[in-house]
Amino acid sequence: MTKAQTGAEALVRSLISGGITTCFANPGTSEMHFVAALDRIPGIRCVLGLQENTVTGMADGYYRVLGRPAATLLHCGPGLANGIANLHNARRAESGIVNITGDHALAHVAYDSPLTTDIAALAGASSDWFHIGTAPEAIGTDAAHSIAAAGTGAGHGRVATLVLPADVSWSEGGEAAAAPERSPLVAPEPAVIREAAAALRGQEKTVIVLGTAGLTRAAHPLIAAIAAATGAEIKSSGMVAVQPRGRDALDIQPVPYPVDLALAALAPFTRVITVGCPLPTAFFLYPGRPSLVTRDGAQHIALSGRDDDAQAALEALAAELGVPVLPLPVRPVSAFTEPEGEITAEGFAETVCGLIPANAIVVNEALTLGTGFPARAGRTEPCDWLHITGGAIGGGLPVATGAAVAAPGRRVITLQADGSAAYTMQALWTQAREGLDCLTLILNNRSYAILVGEYAKVGADPGPTAMDMLSLDRPAIDWVGLAASLGVAGEAVTTLGDLRAAMQGALGRRGPYLIDVRFA
Amino acid sequence: MTKAQTGAEALVRSLISGGITTCFANPGTSEMHFVAALDRIPGIRCVLGLQENTVTGMADGYYRVLGRPAATLLHCGPGLANGIANLHNARRAESGIVNITGDHALAHVAYDSPLTTDIAALAGASSDWFHIGTAPEAIGTDAAHSIAAAGTGAGHGRVATLVLPADVSWSEGGEAAAAPERSPLVAPEPAVIREAAAALRGQEKTVIVLGTAGLTRAAHPLIAAIAAATGAEIKSSGMVAVQPRGRDALDIQPVPYPVDLALAALAPFTRVITVGCPLPTAFFLYPGRPSLVTRDGAQHIALSGRDDDAQAALEALAAELGVPVLPLPVRPVSAFTEPEGEITAEGFAETVCGLIPANAIVVNEALTLGTGFPARAGRTEPCDWLHITGGAIGGGLPVATGAAVAAPGRRVITLQADGSAAYTMQALWTQAREGLDCLTLILNNRSYAILVGEYAKVGADPGPTAMDMLSLDRPAIDWVGLAASLGVAGEAVTTLGDLRAAMQGALGRRGPYLIDVRFA
Repeated sequence: MTKAQTGAEALVRSLISGGITTCFANPGTSEMHFVAALDRIPGIRCVLGLQENTVTGMADGYYRVLGRPAATLLHCGPGLANGIANLHNARRAESGIVNITGDHALAHVAYDSPLTTDIAALAGASSDWFHIGTAPEAIGTDAAHSIAAAGTGAGHGRVATLVLPADVSWSEGGEAAAAPERSPLVAPEPAVIREAAAALRGQEKTVIVLGTAGLTRAAHPLIAAIAAATGAEIKSSGMVAVQPRGRDALDIQPVPYPVDLALAALAPFTRVITVGCPLPTAFFLYPGRPSLVTRDGAQHIALSGRDDDAQAALEALAAELGVPVLPLPVRPVSAFTEPEGEITAEGFAETVCGLIPANAIVVNEALTLGTGFPARAGRTEPCDWLHITGGAIGGGLPVATGAAVAAPGRRVITLQADGSAAYTMQALWTQAREGLDCLTLILNNRSYAILVGEYAKVGADPGPTAMDMLSLDRPAIDWVGLAASLGVAGEAVTTLGDLRAAMQGALGRRGPYLIDVRFA
Repeated sequence: MTKAQTGAEALVRSLISGGITTCFANPGTSEMHFVAALDRIPGIRCVLGLQENTVTGMADGYYRVLGRPAATLLHCGPGLANGIANLHNARRAESGIVNITGDHALAHVAYDSPLTTDIAALAGASSDWFHIGTAPEAIGTDAAHSIAAAGTGAGHGRVATLVLPADVSWSEGGEAAAAPERSPLVAPEPAVIREAAAALRGQEKTVIVLGTAGLTRAAHPLIAAIAAATGAEIKSSGMVAVQPRGRDALDIQPVPYPVDLALAALAPFTRVITVGCPLPTAFFLYPGRPSLVTRDGAQHIALSGRDDDAQAALEALAAELGVPVLPLPVRPVSAFTEPEGEITAEGFAETVCGLIPANAIVVNEALTLGTGFPARAGRTEPCDWLHITGGAIGGGLPVATGAAVAAPGRRVITLQADGSAAYTMQALWTQAREGLDCLTLILNNRSYAILVGEYAKVGADPGPTAMDMLSLDRPAIDWVGLAASLGVAGEAVTTLGDLRAAMQGALGRRGPYLIDVRFA
């Protein structure tokens, strides 16, 4: 760059050089020079969110679909804090985000003006990598480093936070940087491949547990071949960012969420091979239950870890085993019934699965009302399921919104528990603003039903104080009215027949829509 | 306690012993034993929020009104993170909160299950004091320490976070603790009092800047007497948690928010005496402007700081000056006009000020549309104004909700900018649930107008990318519909006459109400 430019301009140019084309944003005063630079330098699409947890959740959904990071733009410590819960989910999804957080001018921090926070502590607690900008001359290189840290590819992303002090942004002297060098994924270790192959050839019962990097569509033929040749059981880790599903994909069931079911599911296996995930744990610890849900004393072989090339590892394992790898057969179209009557978990799943269009993206924050899907998701049209990975409630609507931004032309269907939807309802407004093809199904039981179940494990019936904190029916949220107030049309249904008709109508037109699915 | 109890039960009993009567809550699985203990042991009213930033904001409002802390109940790192922005505002309001955050069982943390976070980093970044519980035997004493740390009294509170691991909560062996010892406020330093008195007797122009602790109703007669006797100028810091206003209070104007106005307002003063606040700073630093807005080289006397007894300091100063302190006269009822026609900032303030009922609480997150109030707030019926102290957007609705919980019988009127309201719209639901007398006036200009002004300072007209991030009219939020969907009735107005009629109607009945005030 020969022309004099501000730090903000150098940053924008560096982001564009690094392949960033989308910025999910909720800016404030400290970010105005950056916004002005986005105005002057074309190349980045800005998508506004009304609250920061929708912004970070959108960036998570975007990465899951495209496998490359978007930028986010947040305002000072409180803006960053508002986005931390979905940054947490993004980290657990191994989604890459270049998280730009504006902050006070460097010289201003010492005066502890009202909006001053411990930005380093907040960035450190919420990010895999962070850096506080120091000068316009360096901010371009800082951006390149943050893009490199954010990574690419399913299961290989990280949250990289770049704090942008206002004076670094507004000062002249900015120097843009070229596209960053990214570290290549680590090639498989032959000894580990041989160990895994030996285990799979042996007599002990073995389960292969797959995380996001091990579950891409490209991996499915390898997994199928290895399972067929060795008799190994295949499971997903249960916290997978993107799982290919439907009739062109392997029908892989997760390690169950309820701890007793998880223990039972894994009890037979004395050997556990993990690919792109850690050993499965109980989500929460419960009295008298273990933290790890694998069989006590089971041998663990980590075929592929956080920075490893899972695809290459599976290829090497298949080669070591000498098994033929063939394209997966696409199963014929499966008939789903058209159930009528009151809405049950089974009937809900049957109805929805029958209507998922080919190439859809299904975002799953269904919680207690999603129990009917695992048995059916292998028979739908080919699609991708995005799960809530980190347990931070309120990921569904923002992730769906970001996925739709990333994938124009693909239909996004969100299975969204009502209690969880309430955390990030603001995302509906961005769906309306951007005209996104997002169909939201609110699974509306007017309670934190998952907590009623958890409370039961405490060993007592909930009394009035507890029920008051677990029920959402005083008042019941009018989800159709709420969506309409934010620009999203919708309707409420109370029967499976009406649900099917409503979904057919919504899928027949463009733009966002919400169906309030009222369970008993 | 002779009866065996869990850690959770010991914690609840210790909170009750320490004077905690209200818990603002958004619990999850890790908190179920605590919820069960709240069920079994009467004494704490639980108030549910749909999202954690409403929970922490409610606790802030509660403290501002009562001067004693409530508890909050949050769920793990992401739940704490969701509440940090309003914890930030609470810290800047010097509001006390006993912030109980459930977390994983201690033994489970090492397994890094999906919801695991760096809870110590999050608690450290968001709290004045924090502790991670270690054992049921100690949790009662931990609670007493957290209550002591949270403090009491206007301008003397702190955010004290007590992390409650699930196994500490569920395990037997809990020991409840008695009410905590609180550190007394620090008595005035005679030398400082004499120095301030000497400055006030001198010829140099002096301004007294008051923070929350120096602005209580009890302090007003002292301030009036000191000002009358010495000719000192009196200002509020502009970030006051609770300011008594109306015809029984001193009409004290804030140091202006816009930096150039603040510099002009303080330019005449070569001496600055602060009471219960630091030296006023620019909210943000701007190119070519200073961080401190006091006159360059002005002498600063801190009469009363963070842990000092501001009331005693003002009493000592009045005594040192030998000025008589008399009860403030209550000014006669002031006539406000009844303007008609389109809604302007001046007409809006005139209309609202004429209708503020005696003893009301006014929550002020008006931002750009609040400019008409400073000139009129001295003439209203006696009331208290709660300002947004920390600059974290979205404090208004939650603070109002918590204030109403704290003060049944007092009317709460919230002046709420629309962009800011969108961050914590969920608070309306709690207003409906609890039947609170909250009247919300949405100051609806369908934009982040404050940022349009900030952008202008960048020195350019906003282009399409910038305007797209500063405008909220695509789609316009239907605030009446949104409120209705969350259980709060309301109406929209576009003229001052309709606004007055709508306010009169709302103030004539109980429960929450929302008026969408549509500015041009």
